[in-house]
Amino acid sequence: MANPNGTTSDLRAVFLEVYSVLKSELLNDPAFEWTDASRQWVERMLDYNVPGGKLNRGLSVIDSYKLLKADELTKDEVFLASALGWCVEWLQAYFLVLDDIMDNSHTRRGQPCWFRVPKVGMIAVNDGIILRNHIPRILKKHFRGKPYYVDLLDLFNEVEFQTASGQMIDLITTIEGEKDLSKYSLPLHRRIVQYKTAYYSFYLPVACALLMAGENLDNHVNVKDVLIDMGIYFQVQDDYLDCFGEPEMIGKIGTDIEDFKCSWLVVKALEHCNEEQKKILFEHYGKTDPADVAKIKVLYNEINLQSVFTEYESKSYEKLTSSIEAHPSKAVQAVLKSFLGKIYKRQK
Amino acid sequence: MANPNGTTSDLRAVFLEVYSVLKSELLNDPAFEWTDASRQWVERMLDYNVPGGKLNRGLSVIDSYKLLKADELTKDEVFLASALGWCVEWLQAYFLVLDDIMDNSHTRRGQPCWFRVPKVGMIAVNDGIILRNHIPRILKKHFRGKPYYVDLLDLFNEVEFQTASGQMIDLITTIEGEKDLSKYSLPLHRRIVQYKTAYYSFYLPVACALLMAGENLDNHVNVKDVLIDMGIYFQVQDDYLDCFGEPEMIGKIGTDIEDFKCSWLVVKALEHCNEEQKKILFEHYGKTDPADVAKIKVLYNEINLQSVFTEYESKSYEKLTSSIEAHPSKAVQAVLKSFLGKIYKRQK
Repeated sequence: MANPNGTTSDLRAVFLEVYSVLKSELLNDPAFEWTDASRQWVERMLDYNVPGGKLNRGLSVIDSYKLLKADELTKDEVFLASALGWCVEWLQAYFLVLDDIMDNSHTRRGQPCWFRVPKVGMIAVNDGIILRNHIPRILKKHFRGKPYYVDLLDLFNEVEFQTASGQMIDLITTIEGEKDLSKYSLPLHRRIVQYKTAYYSFYLPVACALLMAGENLDNHVNVKDVLIDMGIYFQVQDDYLDCFGEPEMIGKIGTDIEDFKCSWLVVKALEHCNEEQKKILFEHYGKTDPADVAKIKVLYNEINLQSVFTEYESKSYEKLTSSIEAHPSKAVQAVLKSFLGKIYKRQK
Repeated sequence: MANPNGTTSDLRAVFLEVYSVLKSELLNDPAFEWTDASRQWVERMLDYNVPGGKLNRGLSVIDSYKLLKADELTKDEVFLASALGWCVEWLQAYFLVLDDIMDNSHTRRGQPCWFRVPKVGMIAVNDGIILRNHIPRILKKHFRGKPYYVDLLDLFNEVEFQTASGQMIDLITTIEGEKDLSKYSLPLHRRIVQYKTAYYSFYLPVACALLMAGENLDNHVNVKDVLIDMGIYFQVQDDYLDCFGEPEMIGKIGTDIEDFKCSWLVVKALEHCNEEQKKILFEHYGKTDPADVAKIKVLYNEINLQSVFTEYESKSYEKLTSSIEAHPSKAVQAVLKSFLGKIYKRQK
């Protein structure tokens, strides 16, 4: 092989092989007396919900661990880092299955949401729980003897708690019949995004790699802070692309305006608009009629939100870069720069 | 105080005080940046869903620990045993909130199910997740330094996995449009009941007490087996009372027949009926019309299911008693006998 540490597509193949191993272990977990029907159900549920995404979060555990170790990984290390990567993907699958029920969504990753599959329906709630429960099963099987086992459990527990708490503020600020744009502000947006997305998408994969590398997470509060800021920046991009991205590129047609989402764009629009424009926002935001949506988009263009975003993007990049360069460890810098490189100026 | 170790009602009061402490800690958890709205939401959600039951599972942790220690408990020990008891109650609340959504239930503990409360709706799914996440928060705050901390985490994880797996076989055997009585059998019933109910209701509280008492759970497989058998017996009683109990006593009107439940009664009816009676079962079980239900009840009386149950009850009692008396430790015997005494020949 030309590149013994694996090219990107090699890594993906290895990562997917580990999925097969983990799945087969879970389907034979001795803590439960399986029936044929239950084994088939879980297998189909896993294949439908776990491996179908971009796998960025999961793969980044292996990438990060490689950079931290600065040496070729043993087969065993590749397996363990992959297993942790899959735990992050399992966590994501769990959230997505349940979020789709709560949001009454229709499609996910180009296929019907799991709860919309015939005969699934509300069983999807329990499937979400099963997905969540697979994480400690994987951790117990492969990490029970490691000195950082209890830290892994604590980490996944804390990050799950933070994600659910972020989801809660998102849900209760958009309760039907209480749509009130005056509640939306940059601090609220930051709080939702930080808790709902940044912890599990950015901090968790790196924290897994740090634990595997024998680090104490208490010594890496600044790494966490940088990753959380990166996660916030990532979600602002997401909000931007939802309105201004190419549907072919982002793989979906954005509906944040229709859904009355506390998007960075509407928060910034509220900040930059005059009294007249504010009236338009209050009257037309959160409505499904394309005429209403169009009025909001015209307003976004009037106040030049695209350049407000461009400025935010370059400022964020500068700030993140200087925070990263202030870090004493070159290996940690490499991890953080790799993350930043993957998301800066992304179009999808 | 006449009884320094507390009478039953004293114990309940102490236990409820611990609830207030835990709740206030959770509402100020530093892992999340609270807003007023989110704190109020969680407080109302907890008060609605956590302390309103009979609290038997939670209280039994304290009872069991007292019997194991065979000495007066310190204030600190009462607090810790209560905290573990509340973790069991939190786990139960989490399952009930989500089960009610899956079963489309109307009432729970004499009030509307949480998801039916105005403005809650599908936010209840996330509230269930929040309830689940509170358990490791409580454990981390109060047990992080204990030698059995990691065992507590493993225990709650394993029991939750088993409960969700039991719920899964229950759900997939009763999928709408695939109602097929021929799938129902005693082994299936046993499996559903063992995983869905017995582990968390019977084994978990005692396992918590054993860990607090410094025991290694691997040395207590026989205690687990007895408790699982007791849990199965408990659920058979539940199935019996659903049909033959007094609604005023059991606090609800049973609907297992209408709901096509894999009840011990229908399994036994299938076992004891002739071909003609079997036809009646297949035709009328799982229908909401009172005339259908009445036909099933007549059949249950024809084959004298009440005396089949009475015999099962006394045989179970004998078997459980002799298993308990075979245990080498008098303290453990006391714990198990206390459980058995509470459920034997119960009418509610």
